[in-house]
Amino acid sequence: MDTNVTRDGGPLTGYRIVDLSQVLSGPAATMLLADQGAEVIKVEPLTGDITRKLGVGGDAMSTFFLNANRGKRGIALDIKTKEGSEVVSRLIKTADVLVQNFRPGVMDKLGFGLDSVRALRDDIIYVSISGFGDQGPYANKRVYDPVVQALSGLTEIQADAEDGRPRMVRTVIPDKTTALTAAQAITAALLGRARTGIGQHVEIAMLNATIAYLWPEGMVNQTLVDDDREPVFGQPVKELIFKTQDGYITTGAMSDKEWDGLCRALDKPEWIIDPRFKTTQLRFKNAQERLAATAAIIATKTNEEWLARLDRFAVPCAPVLSRTEMLTHPQVVADDIIREYEQPGLGRVRQPRSGAKFHGVAETEPPVAPLLGQHNAEVLSDLGYSQVEIDRFAATKVISG
Amino acid sequence: MDTNVTRDGGPLTGYRIVDLSQVLSGPAATMLLADQGAEVIKVEPLTGDITRKLGVGGDAMSTFFLNANRGKRGIALDIKTKEGSEVVSRLIKTADVLVQNFRPGVMDKLGFGLDSVRALRDDIIYVSISGFGDQGPYANKRVYDPVVQALSGLTEIQADAEDGRPRMVRTVIPDKTTALTAAQAITAALLGRARTGIGQHVEIAMLNATIAYLWPEGMVNQTLVDDDREPVFGQPVKELIFKTQDGYITTGAMSDKEWDGLCRALDKPEWIIDPRFKTTQLRFKNAQERLAATAAIIATKTNEEWLARLDRFAVPCAPVLSRTEMLTHPQVVADDIIREYEQPGLGRVRQPRSGAKFHGVAETEPPVAPLLGQHNAEVLSDLGYSQVEIDRFAATKVISG
Repeated sequence: MDTNVTRDGGPLTGYRIVDLSQVLSGPAATMLLADQGAEVIKVEPLTGDITRKLGVGGDAMSTFFLNANRGKRGIALDIKTKEGSEVVSRLIKTADVLVQNFRPGVMDKLGFGLDSVRALRDDIIYVSISGFGDQGPYANKRVYDPVVQALSGLTEIQADAEDGRPRMVRTVIPDKTTALTAAQAITAALLGRARTGIGQHVEIAMLNATIAYLWPEGMVNQTLVDDDREPVFGQPVKELIFKTQDGYITTGAMSDKEWDGLCRALDKPEWIIDPRFKTTQLRFKNAQERLAATAAIIATKTNEEWLARLDRFAVPCAPVLSRTEMLTHPQVVADDIIREYEQPGLGRVRQPRSGAKFHGVAETEPPVAPLLGQHNAEVLSDLGYSQVEIDRFAATKVISG
Repeated sequence: MDTNVTRDGGPLTGYRIVDLSQVLSGPAATMLLADQGAEVIKVEPLTGDITRKLGVGGDAMSTFFLNANRGKRGIALDIKTKEGSEVVSRLIKTADVLVQNFRPGVMDKLGFGLDSVRALRDDIIYVSISGFGDQGPYANKRVYDPVVQALSGLTEIQADAEDGRPRMVRTVIPDKTTALTAAQAITAALLGRARTGIGQHVEIAMLNATIAYLWPEGMVNQTLVDDDREPVFGQPVKELIFKTQDGYITTGAMSDKEWDGLCRALDKPEWIIDPRFKTTQLRFKNAQERLAATAAIIATKTNEEWLARLDRFAVPCAPVLSRTEMLTHPQVVADDIIREYEQPGLGRVRQPRSGAKFHGVAETEPPVAPLLGQHNAEVLSDLGYSQVEIDRFAATKVISG
């Protein structure tokens, strides 16, 4: 048992984040920080974050909204009114971090540009998340995830091997990678401020974040300036999916030892000394032949039979799971990745633990997402507003009723 | 001009990270922290990180190695010798963070399990990156990226619309998402330590990190416990790639206003009042018809003609770029995303800026990656070893020669 632990809400305990962002790139970033103990106050327009109504869910919120906003408190106000703007100003005075993902220029129009916010709180970390930063021909263009996939080279990476047609990846890599990049950058800026006393302006552009994410193995052929190569078929990840009698598995061998095990598992010991497959280089060179022959054998037994055999010979392997199957896979269950609890406005929900486990952090209450304006009275009261003022704001539609 | 800035090497300046990790999930995490000013000392075996020889590159290193190890110093030693182990021990005493991505149990065998390391430095942040954590049936299985893609549900998300066959994403999402997750968690743990004085044990499992990454929009149909839905066709990202006369573009309209613009750009004003397409819901319902008709029109002009027209009507759009085209796209150039410099052992190279921009951080020397054992003498000398000892270590193969 590890005794060298903290017993608190997580490493970001004690920091307050005011979050004006909507949709995904900002909200998913601050959700991760809320998971780690930060106090996140989400400021929504009176109509709510547009994802409250996106797809599956109820009137109060969609599952999409929950999945990017758990563990936050929420207020809803009209930032364009004098009183609403004043509420945001007072909130900023109490905050360590301000996060926003408006297009360049919008924060200035709202009266919350960098200098105005610094005047309210001079050591605040001011976070600007955008599609393309504030320079260049795309700075003011509308951005959706596919736009960044197309510009970053990701759709070429995913191109069809047969005809070279570019393809999208069907999960929003630019948005979510930007969120993780922003969460790390905000945390780093807080760490830097603890040393220097200075709150940084931190800018995260989706295109930049996506290119940096793709780069390590995705751009190995673009890294040498004077030696560009045609990259389409240069990816380390091959389509290692094999159909069995009753499903799909993945398996593969990198080292000679794993290849030896794979040959035995496939009942093809003769392949171990086959001149076509003797070294990693030769196995790569003769990949088509090797994979076709492997596929033909794997088609003859069930998932369960193959996974047991491959495990016995210590060959990397796994079943190809649907998302619904994933939920109850023994490894997901054993590592306690998914938690169930009641979400007001939605019912019983599942949420995954965020990616890193910190030892010694206390179990928290279920991290529910706020109903629209749920914490209006509580947050405004903390900021010094009287009940009379709060009631008047609700009556005059400065805040949600 | 922003005057409220620091003039140093970045927010992680002053922290020392000892990095025993190899390949990608650990190295890419510590590279990001090195980009932000941390001092990262990479400890390699005498044969080097196995990615030094992977794919494109020279004898000293591959582009893959550079892409996950820029900006670090490197030493190479045999950790299994008494003297090599002692060097690592002394290094740990000077470190804020220890990062490793061995399989569970290996660090204990090497004499650097959690308790042993705590005995050397009690407030160290001990980071364990693994495929599956140390519990459950997969804990000791070998892990490659495709295994996690298959288990996490990602291959179902990417499944062919036509026949439902699962597909891999051809960039290593589990490895790279784990790296970003780890970088954020390490930074958070440093921030937590600044408050509590306690160094955490931080564990990052690839399967957990990947599930958390996919969840926000990828698991909207798995979020409600009592309302599971068949998810295959439920993705917000459609295949919005259109062939033009001379290439491919992406375009799409979410709001009514964008749809109006798109209809005009396509010279189909009658679609604005077409009953099939009047609302977002109807456009979604009649997506097949709508996309097929759109594709037929887009096929009749060039990329340049379409992008100009779509821009004129404020419709989100972009060219679909190859990775090589991406390098010189005006937006990438304008935002100064890619830097060129000389990398010893490789020649002139390109590297992208990491995803977040911190204002006021000084321009640094080009962040080169270390040659194998390049900083042996320097690091050992700092640890108090004499030149005689260093020479003896090199002669007896405790360190690289």
